[in-house]
Amino acid sequence: MTVPIPEGAVGARMDALVRRLYPLCRSITGDGVRATLDIIGEHLPLTVHEVPTGTDVLDWTVPQEWNIRDAYIADATGRRWVDFREHALHVVGYSVPVHETMPLAKLREHLHTLPGQPSLIPYRTSYYAPTWGFCLAQETLDAMPDGDYEVRIDSTLADGHLTYAEHVVPGQVTDEVIISCHVCHPALANDNMAGVAVAVELARTLENPYHTYRFIFAPGTIGAITWLARNAARVEKVKHGIVLACAGDPGSLTYKQSRRGDADVDRVLAHVLRDRPHEIRAFSPYGYDERQYCSPGFNLGVGCLTRTPYAEYPEYHTSGDDPDLVSAESMLDTLAVLREAVSVLDVNRHYVNLSPYGEPQLGKRGLYDSLGGRSDAKQAQMAMLWVLNLSDGDHSLLDIAERAGLPFDSVAAAAAALADAGLVKE
Amino acid sequence: MTVPIPEGAVGARMDALVRRLYPLCRSITGDGVRATLDIIGEHLPLTVHEVPTGTDVLDWTVPQEWNIRDAYIADATGRRWVDFREHALHVVGYSVPVHETMPLAKLREHLHTLPGQPSLIPYRTSYYAPTWGFCLAQETLDAMPDGDYEVRIDSTLADGHLTYAEHVVPGQVTDEVIISCHVCHPALANDNMAGVAVAVELARTLENPYHTYRFIFAPGTIGAITWLARNAARVEKVKHGIVLACAGDPGSLTYKQSRRGDADVDRVLAHVLRDRPHEIRAFSPYGYDERQYCSPGFNLGVGCLTRTPYAEYPEYHTSGDDPDLVSAESMLDTLAVLREAVSVLDVNRHYVNLSPYGEPQLGKRGLYDSLGGRSDAKQAQMAMLWVLNLSDGDHSLLDIAERAGLPFDSVAAAAAALADAGLVKE
Amino acid sequence: MTVPIPEGAVGARMDALVRRLYPLCRSITGDGVRATLDIIGEHLPLTVHEVPTGTDVLDWTVPQEWNIRDAYIADATGRRWVDFREHALHVVGYSVPVHETMPLAKLREHLHTLPGQPSLIPYRTSYYAPTWGFCLAQETLDAMPDGDYEVRIDSTLADGHLTYAEHVVPGQVTDEVIISCHVCHPALANDNMAGVAVAVELARTLENPYHTYRFIFAPGTIGAITWLARNAARVEKVKHGIVLACAGDPGSLTYKQSRRGDADVDRVLAHVLRDRPHEIRAFSPYGYDERQYCSPGFNLGVGCLTRTPYAEYPEYHTSGDDPDLVSAESMLDTLAVLREAVSVLDVNRHYVNLSPYGEPQLGKRGLYDSLGGRSDAKQAQMAMLWVLNLSDGDHSLLDIAERAGLPFDSVAAAAAALADAGLVKE
Repeated sequence: MTVPIPEGAVGARMDALVRRLYPLCRSITGDGVRATLDIIGEHLPLTVHEVPTGTDVLDWTVPQEWNIRDAYIADATGRRWVDFREHALHVVGYSVPVHETMPLAKLREHLHTLPGQPSLIPYRTSYYAPTWGFCLAQETLDAMPDGDYEVRIDSTLADGHLTYAEHVVPGQVTDEVIISCHVCHPALANDNMAGVAVAVELARTLENPYHTYRFIFAPGTIGAITWLARNAARVEKVKHGIVLACAGDPGSLTYKQSRRGDADVDRVLAHVLRDRPHEIRAFSPYGYDERQYCSPGFNLGVGCLTRTPYAEYPEYHTSGDDPDLVSAESMLDTLAVLREAVSVLDVNRHYVNLSPYGEPQLGKRGLYDSLGGRSDAKQAQMAMLWVLNLSDGDHSLLDIAERAGLPFDSVAAAAAALADAGLVKE
Repeated sequence: MTVPIPEGAVGARMDALVRRLYPLCRSITGDGVRATLDIIGEHLPLTVHEVPTGTDVLDWTVPQEWNIRDAYIADATGRRWVDFREHALHVVGYSVPVHETMPLAKLREHLHTLPGQPSLIPYRTSYYAPTWGFCLAQETLDAMPDGDYEVRIDSTLADGHLTYAEHVVPGQVTDEVIISCHVCHPALANDNMAGVAVAVELARTLENPYHTYRFIFAPGTIGAITWLARNAARVEKVKHGIVLACAGDPGSLTYKQSRRGDADVDRVLAHVLRDRPHEIRAFSPYGYDERQYCSPGFNLGVGCLTRTPYAEYPEYHTSGDDPDLVSAESMLDTLAVLREAVSVLDVNRHYVNLSPYGEPQLGKRGLYDSLGGRSDAKQAQMAMLWVLNLSDGDHSLLDIAERAGLPFDSVAAAAAALADAGLVKE
Repeated sequence: MTVPIPEGAVGARMDALVRRLYPLCRSITGDGVRATLDIIGEHLPLTVHEVPTGTDVLDWTVPQEWNIRDAYIADATGRRWVDFREHALHVVGYSVPVHETMPLAKLREHLHTLPGQPSLIPYRTSYYAPTWGFCLAQETLDAMPDGDYEVRIDSTLADGHLTYAEHVVPGQVTDEVIISCHVCHPALANDNMAGVAVAVELARTLENPYHTYRFIFAPGTIGAITWLARNAARVEKVKHGIVLACAGDPGSLTYKQSRRGDADVDRVLAHVLRDRPHEIRAFSPYGYDERQYCSPGFNLGVGCLTRTPYAEYPEYHTSGDDPDLVSAESMLDTLAVLREAVSVLDVNRHYVNLSPYGEPQLGKRGLYDSLGGRSDAKQAQMAMLWVLNLSDGDHSLLDIAERAGLPFDSVAAAAAALADAGLVKE
């Protein structure tokens, strides 16, 4: 169901996509998001949605659209100490426009630094409170002499739209798996252009899957909320889902369970990750957009896959989260796990033994070795016996694989063989 | 809901109460119990119940009332080798009257000592078999020369009453929490005058609690059975309860779960004790009056809080259990845990999220920091997110606190703030 | 309910039975099975069933009957290098008749050896594929010079019957416990003549048991399937069961749980084995006839008791599994566990406390020590308190014993005493 692709080419393609998307000044609305979706759209056909400012979405309202052209702090000589054109993180997201001259002492109230990481620029936003600010390295601030500075943020906050996009791979059934990536962070590579790059490659490899796969590229929180508000009637189609973020750093994989904790996606990810270094965490209502998908009214089976979780790597939400933090190798590893998870999710079904009284005679159907007495029961035969024994409607193939201690593939193959022989059916 | 009181004064008051109550000759009936309740009544308004001998109470019958004025073993010179006036433990509880002279050899059949603790007087009773006996130190017995002794127990067993008392603190609801102390042990300090002293102080500090609190001071077994028999119709009002005993010895706290094992009181005590040295034990049908409250027909959510459990400290049921075994510090510690348990029991309710689809926008309600991007989610905000996410009717605030790993107080405060904002309701 | 018997005599009798049954050439049908059942029938009255070839049994069909009179591989001098009359394992079970002369090179295709255990003859069968073959020691094969050999198997495959037998010990109720032994392995002692010998002795000692005990001596797989097919209507009477195999080797006991995992028999065996070296294993759909009894359509509470499990001792399915591998001591140990399991299964019932409100007054019924205050609660009294407290219909006596940490016997005795006193009833 997934198409093999040479790993080297895929890795290089993901790396290039991250580097191209990285510098854009994204926010929860505006042209940075549109430019990001345009580039993704070069790789995948996207349906782009524009939702007008003021639209009520669940408990929220789509805010005004924010766009920015330039921003700087310049001294009397015209030297730009802080220049938005050099780094999109320099401006607090959703800063209102400003053009004033003020002494450094007063300007400081609007400056954000990381004293503990003096060479890095922090990432700050103020979506829902009208203010303005700059983010800069502590080292830069330390070097700025007292005196007056020209402060300019050439931004606009005006009625416009919130923009998000979807890519759908139709499946054999209309039940859906969603893969959701936030696209609202400016100039941060691992968080979340790496997730976007991995999602793009996953989407490419899906061919005639069992489930319908819906990829959602939307700004965090308000984007997921907008998607949920506009799709409330079809949310019941969403059977499984993964929020994908921080997909390219050097850390090992972390899967955060859905609110349910025992949803199929939780079981599948635990199974797929079992032989790799990994961590499984219980749901908590903080993090990425699983917060919205797993709000109690929806309570979807949606978990979150990352490498190092948010806020746990030192470069998180700083200018240190640049494309060099992200490697093709890590993104390929994330992609491999996702592809394996997809393959289990799509095959993991419940069968019913049609011959549940005693074991059916496998030998006469060519499914069993004819020479008895040997003590080495082969894996394929054990898988058939397990599928027959546990196919009572209560056990999925994954349940059976885990109970039997057998690879999922061998259990799935046994089920297929038994279905062909008319001994079990879905 | 509880009133802060200077600890020193409270400790001294509990210590004084234990020392005053200690020497009385209590039993399951009689004037010793009445005198005990009179003294408690100086501190708390009590309703005293007198239940006539012969009253059927569940499977039992209220026995005759036992009173004793004097008892001794004297030699021919009149020297009292054993003198009830020196220690109430010297007489086996419910001893029938006797006045005879008999040789030591014959008298020995009626003497109880502790050969392994030769300086201590044991505690023995014979409530339901008519006999008599004395308890004394092995050292005393060893010193007694052979020869005839005058043996006298000036007791009466006659129709009368069983006496118990209640103190009720009315709550905002009529659902009840019971705090039950046995008051039948003569001249034992930790077991149970310390429990009585702690209960008195707890009762004092309750002001307009949510639940109605009922303090029961009753003789063990037959007293609890009598209370249950006379309150069978209202037992369903009892939502939670704690049997309080051995509340003042130097050991750490032990909570014995109710028969249910997962009653609210069991969960609350585990939560309150989690950061102190403590032990949680499963229910067993032996111990104090939780045996009766947790009999299968009632099966109330009543556990038992002690410091060192019965029979596990060497002074248990001996003259070594005197007021010096009990300290104000230990009783204050027991009281502190009880007060915390009460505060959780009274606040621990189920809320329902009224905006369960996606997260409600906390920021527009002033409940959320306006500056985003920072990685330190504050405890108060995490508590709000957890309350919103788990307030689905299935989770109490304590469930949420435990799931979230947050202090109960912070979760309760979050729930209150969210209720004020109209986002959740009980 | 079980009759004590001198262990020495029993052990010697089991050993003699194994040695007598051992050499017979059993298979899934034929005179070897009949001879085996005849000998068992000398010890226990048996009902022998003959089921005609071609009878449909569940998904299977009773095969043709196989009998063999002689078989050998002889060289030109007439020397028999392999002689069925010396060891029944020499012929592949269900071999079709053959009488040819062929070179060793061609003969090799029909020869089975164990290169890793060169002195042992393997056990092989080919019940459902018409072929022939010989099993021999690798050492023998290595010694055979090249050249032509006369190969003869004087067997018949013809319509006939499948034979199995039952021995029933009627109980006080018609609910059944089945004890099932496979009797299809030729010339293997531990697997399963030791199981047969232990079952015979267990059957002897049952006198007026509570349950009806049904001993089933049948060929593996097809025998159990035939029994299930012919008893489908009464399978619901089977409340518990044990498949007994490999009952005499020097290993410690292994109990394999039923498919349910928490059936009464699973709980009882865990309880009975708890103080012995033992292993409990989860159900798997491979092994002995528990595979059939636990197929999902039946899902009976039937586990499997062995000493060393199949395929885990080096002599398994080889000529090394001879009577010297089996000891009277091991068989007596297996028998002791079975007898204890039977005694718990037969007594383990649910009682209801008829006086569930408060503790009933045990003292007035002579069930409680009259002298109170002592801290040593006796086991018998604790058992009574536990039975009273947990006899709410949900807890069996075994549940109570395990919860209380008391011996089953003491809990059963307490229940009996309380039932006599009218305080509990079944």
